Amino acid sequence: MKDMPDIHTLMADIGARAKAAAAELAFAPAEAKASALNAAADAVWASRAAIVAANAKDLEYGREKGLSDAMMDRLLLTEDRIRGIVDGLRAVAAQDDPVGQVMADWDRPSGLHIRRVRTPLGVVGVIYESRPNVTADAGALCLKAGNAVILRGGSESFHSSTAIHAALVEGLRAAGLPEDAIQLVPTRDRAAVSEMLTMTESIDVIVPRGGKGLVGLVQREARVPVFAHLEGIVHIYIDKAADPVKALKVVINAKTRRTGICGAAECLLIHRDVVDDIGQGVIRALIEAGVEVRADAALKAIPGTAEATEADWGKEYLDKIIAARVVDDIDAAIAHIRRYGSNHTDAIITEDDAAAERFFTRLDSAILMRNASTQFADGGEFGMGAEIGIATGKMHARGPVGAEQLTSFKYLVTGDGTVRG
Amino acid sequence: MKDMPDIHTLMADIGARAKAAAAELAFAPAEAKASALNAAADAVWASRAAIVAANAKDLEYGREKGLSDAMMDRLLLTEDRIRGIVDGLRAVAAQDDPVGQVMADWDRPSGLHIRRVRTPLGVVGVIYESRPNVTADAGALCLKAGNAVILRGGSESFHSSTAIHAALVEGLRAAGLPEDAIQLVPTRDRAAVSEMLTMTESIDVIVPRGGKGLVGLVQREARVPVFAHLEGIVHIYIDKAADPVKALKVVINAKTRRTGICGAAECLLIHRDVVDDIGQGVIRALIEAGVEVRADAALKAIPGTAEATEADWGKEYLDKIIAARVVDDIDAAIAHIRRYGSNHTDAIITEDDAAAERFFTRLDSAILMRNASTQFADGGEFGMGAEIGIATGKMHARGPVGAEQLTSFKYLVTGDGTVRG
Repeated sequence: MKDMPDIHTLMADIGARAKAAAAELAFAPAEAKASALNAAADAVWASRAAIVAANAKDLEYGREKGLSDAMMDRLLLTEDRIRGIVDGLRAVAAQDDPVGQVMADWDRPSGLHIRRVRTPLGVVGVIYESRPNVTADAGALCLKAGNAVILRGGSESFHSSTAIHAALVEGLRAAGLPEDAIQLVPTRDRAAVSEMLTMTESIDVIVPRGGKGLVGLVQREARVPVFAHLEGIVHIYIDKAADPVKALKVVINAKTRRTGICGAAECLLIHRDVVDDIGQGVIRALIEAGVEVRADAALKAIPGTAEATEADWGKEYLDKIIAARVVDDIDAAIAHIRRYGSNHTDAIITEDDAAAERFFTRLDSAILMRNASTQFADGGEFGMGAEIGIATGKMHARGPVGAEQLTSFKYLVTGDGTVRG
Repeated sequence: MKDMPDIHTLMADIGARAKAAAAELAFAPAEAKASALNAAADAVWASRAAIVAANAKDLEYGREKGLSDAMMDRLLLTEDRIRGIVDGLRAVAAQDDPVGQVMADWDRPSGLHIRRVRTPLGVVGVIYESRPNVTADAGALCLKAGNAVILRGGSESFHSSTAIHAALVEGLRAAGLPEDAIQLVPTRDRAAVSEMLTMTESIDVIVPRGGKGLVGLVQREARVPVFAHLEGIVHIYIDKAADPVKALKVVINAKTRRTGICGAAECLLIHRDVVDDIGQGVIRALIEAGVEVRADAALKAIPGTAEATEADWGKEYLDKIIAARVVDDIDAAIAHIRRYGSNHTDAIITEDDAAAERFFTRLDSAILMRNASTQFADGGEFGMGAEIGIATGKMHARGPVGAEQLTSFKYLVTGDGTVRG
């Protein structure tokens, strides 16, 4: 790009424009936002040829960079995938608008009436990696919640994201909303990320979506509040009171349905008393399903298992691999998860209510499950509509982050000349 | 204190102990927490002589330091004030326990049942200034919410806070809860504050309560999430559709009931059309009540007013002073508040629903009021019980911060061998 100003100036300008747009968006009618999203969906579909062409440039760049097949697949946009983006935009458009919703209201003896209503957060910064569809998903969710958004996509998807972004802006324009409501950082320069992490004047929250490199950078440099999205080091504990059929169904689904998502199971903990029946059966079924089982000493007699090392505990494989370990009791399972987990999603298989309660009370993962596949860790499956990710921090948003989680609130208090005694 | 380890080691140890205590507190029974608070109340009352003696040392230190009368008064503990601390502890003990409350629950077509339940935040760091009673209030609220707390009081109140803290620990001990649940930083060294602001491994959130110096330090140095507590630059806008009686009652109460609290009015904005009747009346009444009115050019003809300078807009006086300005319309009032306000509490006096709605929609203060005194900006008045302060940020907690606002949440999902298709 020619005549690009220096990164600091560029980002400061983007921030100021986002802030100005956010001030208008905060009271934009729900219809205008929905109409912008539908118009954006139309524009994405109408420009699908241009998007595919832009994507071809990214794929070429990816090939030159030697990206893995998995990465190349994440980067690829086909007409089918563009249809998915369009459907996603329309789905967010059709959701309830969270802004202005009354979360609670009550009267006070003083005569005051108090309402707690949802408001936008302001300006959201989204930093993401290769998947270009995040440009549309994140842009749409932030807009739905009345926020301005600054999108900083991965350098690999630069041209694809730019083409999708152009369609989003077309939607804003058609609905008469400020075009600065959805901005895409127009440079691959990684310094833009560091700038965003310190723009406390203009960015209200950063949503980082990416691997360990990005998470580490955010932890070191962020001065803006962050919705932490750590890895999904997902554990399943098979309790001594587990139902064998449920254990089998759930573990196989949690590990094999899709291995690359953050809700995929990564570690199996088995109560010592049920190793020989349920444990054996589950591990054999995993191996038959083509999963590499990295087992501890107590399990390594099972044919086909590989030997686990210390590095396997707390590891997110995102692949057809699972770690497996025998534990003496539920407290040992809890201790293992506390030590190696990432507070994302963890599950217990048990018919014992007291054991489930103990697991639910003593662990503090964003999502805890009983007798259900951890692959349900997803905003859509929770009934929240689309999501921008699964937050693992404790502040503000936790678990699936949809439009509602991208809001704040304020108190509206009405009296009638009411004064305090 | 003798043989004090270096600050970094000291604080790291305090952090680690707080984290261990938090893990236990997270599932402490509600009764144990309530009983600890009641036992602490007993212990405070039983040791009131020791607390008064400790306070005398602080007062002497304060006199040597040349503290203002107002500061000395904030520092002073009498038997009456200690009774207030005791009552506060018992009131928090009697409140509903927020931990484990089901915030929402729903069923999904997949067969899953999802509950969103309140959990503690973990470890809270509270940094505060002279008032020693904050030691008890903040300690009690954090404990109620199942959090461990690290209290860092002002150096002026060091001995008083230490004596109160000893009583809180006695309460914990009596209830069989970990004594490290409520820790007080045992040094006046200001470096402890900087340490706390960067203890991301052990502190989940910092609550700063103090003046501009502390706020600035927090903004510069905090790596731990912060519940921002900015100043209360509280505005009251008298709309052209204001009721004159309500305007007078509310403004006088908002400015004069107590001038030193954050909900006290600091700036009056008057619609041009009502300057000559309502505006004059209100300003004369303020002057009669002993308030210095710093007026803009359009108001300076009113006898007894002083001339406002640019420095008066956006100023928190916390004193018998108010700034006053004429505005052309409601949008000019909104623009003034956006520019000079602190997103704490702002009010409109109007009988016009559309004007109130515009004010409520276009401003984003944590608390917005209509026809009510801004002195109601208080957790007790909101019906939340005690509060640790009024948060002005947009993240997690906003407005009065009580026990409920010191919690997070998690999702508990139950199935019956449920798998994702």
